Amino acid sequence: MEVPPPLVLKRPLYVPSKTLMGPGPSNCSHRVLEAMSNPVLGHMHPECLQIMDEVKEGIKYIFQTLNDATMCISGAGHSGMEAALCNLIEDGDVVLMGITGVWGHRAGDMARRYGAEVHYVEASFGRALSHEEITFAFEAHRPKVFFIAQGDSSTGIIQQNIRELGELCRKYDCFLIVDTVASLGGTEFLMDEWKVDVAYTGSQKSLGGPAGLTPISFSKRALTRIRKRKTKPKVYYFDILLIGQYWGCYGTPRIYHHTISSTLLYGLREALAHFCAVGLKAVVRRHQECSKRLQLGIEELGLEMFVSREDERLPTVNTIKVPFGVDWKKVAEYAMRKYSVEVSGGLGPTVEHVFRIGLMGENATVERVDMVLSILNEAIQSSKLGIKTDLSKI
Amino acid sequence: MEVPPPLVLKRPLYVPSKTLMGPGPSNCSHRVLEAMSNPVLGHMHPECLQIMDEVKEGIKYIFQTLNDATMCISGAGHSGMEAALCNLIEDGDVVLMGITGVWGHRAGDMARRYGAEVHYVEASFGRALSHEEITFAFEAHRPKVFFIAQGDSSTGIIQQNIRELGELCRKYDCFLIVDTVASLGGTEFLMDEWKVDVAYTGSQKSLGGPAGLTPISFSKRALTRIRKRKTKPKVYYFDILLIGQYWGCYGTPRIYHHTISSTLLYGLREALAHFCAVGLKAVVRRHQECSKRLQLGIEELGLEMFVSREDERLPTVNTIKVPFGVDWKKVAEYAMRKYSVEVSGGLGPTVEHVFRIGLMGENATVERVDMVLSILNEAIQSSKLGIKTDLSKI
Repeated sequence: MEVPPPLVLKRPLYVPSKTLMGPGPSNCSHRVLEAMSNPVLGHMHPECLQIMDEVKEGIKYIFQTLNDATMCISGAGHSGMEAALCNLIEDGDVVLMGITGVWGHRAGDMARRYGAEVHYVEASFGRALSHEEITFAFEAHRPKVFFIAQGDSSTGIIQQNIRELGELCRKYDCFLIVDTVASLGGTEFLMDEWKVDVAYTGSQKSLGGPAGLTPISFSKRALTRIRKRKTKPKVYYFDILLIGQYWGCYGTPRIYHHTISSTLLYGLREALAHFCAVGLKAVVRRHQECSKRLQLGIEELGLEMFVSREDERLPTVNTIKVPFGVDWKKVAEYAMRKYSVEVSGGLGPTVEHVFRIGLMGENATVERVDMVLSILNEAIQSSKLGIKTDLSKI
Repeated sequence: MEVPPPLVLKRPLYVPSKTLMGPGPSNCSHRVLEAMSNPVLGHMHPECLQIMDEVKEGIKYIFQTLNDATMCISGAGHSGMEAALCNLIEDGDVVLMGITGVWGHRAGDMARRYGAEVHYVEASFGRALSHEEITFAFEAHRPKVFFIAQGDSSTGIIQQNIRELGELCRKYDCFLIVDTVASLGGTEFLMDEWKVDVAYTGSQKSLGGPAGLTPISFSKRALTRIRKRKTKPKVYYFDILLIGQYWGCYGTPRIYHHTISSTLLYGLREALAHFCAVGLKAVVRRHQECSKRLQLGIEELGLEMFVSREDERLPTVNTIKVPFGVDWKKVAEYAMRKYSVEVSGGLGPTVEHVFRIGLMGENATVERVDMVLSILNEAIQSSKLGIKTDLSKI
């Protein structure tokens, strides 16, 4: 029996242009997209290693860290979460997960697979975790590792007290992992000053890079612990001592660990270069201003933000309550079909309850905010009026 | 203390054009490179899922399989090796690694981390493994999983008897993992007919796609075993039941597992489309003809192939003995500096002993073979004559 070549691959590639204002990926700039059509380089070529060095410096800047162990994992944001947990956890270690949405649960699933004893500390629905709640859980469980998402993209909640959590972790001899996938660029993050042990972020959100390479950094304290492990990390592909050697982090000769995608490196490098040129503070300010403008507009439309406290709202992924009687799916479909604009529904605990509007990177502009507000309103009105729009005719 | 933006990111991106005739990555065609500058799509957008479906059909064709569980891992080739082992291995399982170069050892390192009891069966230096050697090891160890690389890129050895190994594994109730990273497209591979349980390959070799997405397929038999595991696979990111759900492999609703890189999907899709248009048999024939032409040329130059038996030579990655008194590094540097052509040295057991010349995808052409032979000769002669070429002036 012979398997024939598939007919679908005889058709041309079809990629429509969309404005991605969901929880990510966000749109890449022309500069980033163009960079990715550059010729491929070998993973050990000096020009490739040079670009890796440049990316490394860019990551240190966006995390505000001097950590040597700063690099990328060759995988999606989830692989950053894996690498953080995989390197810190040994069998039986007690790990505490902060929950403000889905990401703490995801981290818990991973950690259990690595053999950890996992506990959770969960915020009230729609709220960030207070220092008291976390301290109470620390007292109860005495964790070796504590995980928290600075911004949870499923709920649009921001955890503002990372600095205090850094202190708390030192006090309890615990390691602090902060997921900044959705938050970085939209809010302040000072890895070294706040005593964060591991941080990783998404390339395809506020950075405006392509998905598939995940910036990550380990503190000297974390690295010391990892070097003293009794067992090897359970995954070769995520072994930070080996990856860091390839990335030239430890002052030792660079040794092949895996074949990095030079294509993605070009894109990420250009995204970081643009980010650095604008400057971290200006980027954060712009994201916050855009979110404020959106929140005002949402109020003016008579809609309500999902996160009640203003200071607990993530500026990058904004969650808006779906009004009573409105089908979120129809609204999202309307925006996509009529305007090629992505407005997303909820995830996990917020499914069917919220719209998620991403204001990240290229899409964190006043113009885009005004556009998405207008589209959202139009889509909701059309849905409320019960107009049966035949979408296939738009 | 504030970390300033790095100066290196104020310089423009520098990517030279090279002819990549090492063990991979190989060059991408213009069609593939251009595809990757298309706008980004969301990982759950119907157009993205459509491209994933097309890629899936292309992978079934190149593996010659009807397996439902056919998909990509979002990572380098190494992540394919991880996923194969991670899903099949539970604590204490006996795993046997066939060794014809470095890759069996790498798989052994991974499997041990997953808790397996690892044994090795090693071929004589420069030879493939015989059926007798492998059967003997099966008798001694009764493995649950057997790993072999069809082509080992470190030595340039091809393992021709995969079909017999499929039979052997069935007889011993063992699962057969075949690494086709370096071999696929350069030699016949019939996953279903040969009863292979897991196969994965490199996107950036004969396929001519970008690095970063790794095609993989699991047999129904393997899938049944995985569904009956007592424990979850140790890595969420490599859990084939979850990834396959996202890829729409099991007839269940597609559920978000991670953010796939649409950019890499475009490139891989176009590479597969080209591969399918030419046809598997024609691609394999071309790779073999090119390798034969290279081998003849090598003899004419008075050089010697590293693999003594002609039928054990991998057509894609060709290993040539470094002549006595010649410094392989100087030869490789000469080729790169004067012609921007990559000719590689050895890896692992072959370091300093061989040149590795890749004839893959775009570079598996008569013209490239003649070119690389001429350059190799010139580089060796210049090195033999002891001419002190001041490379900085070329």
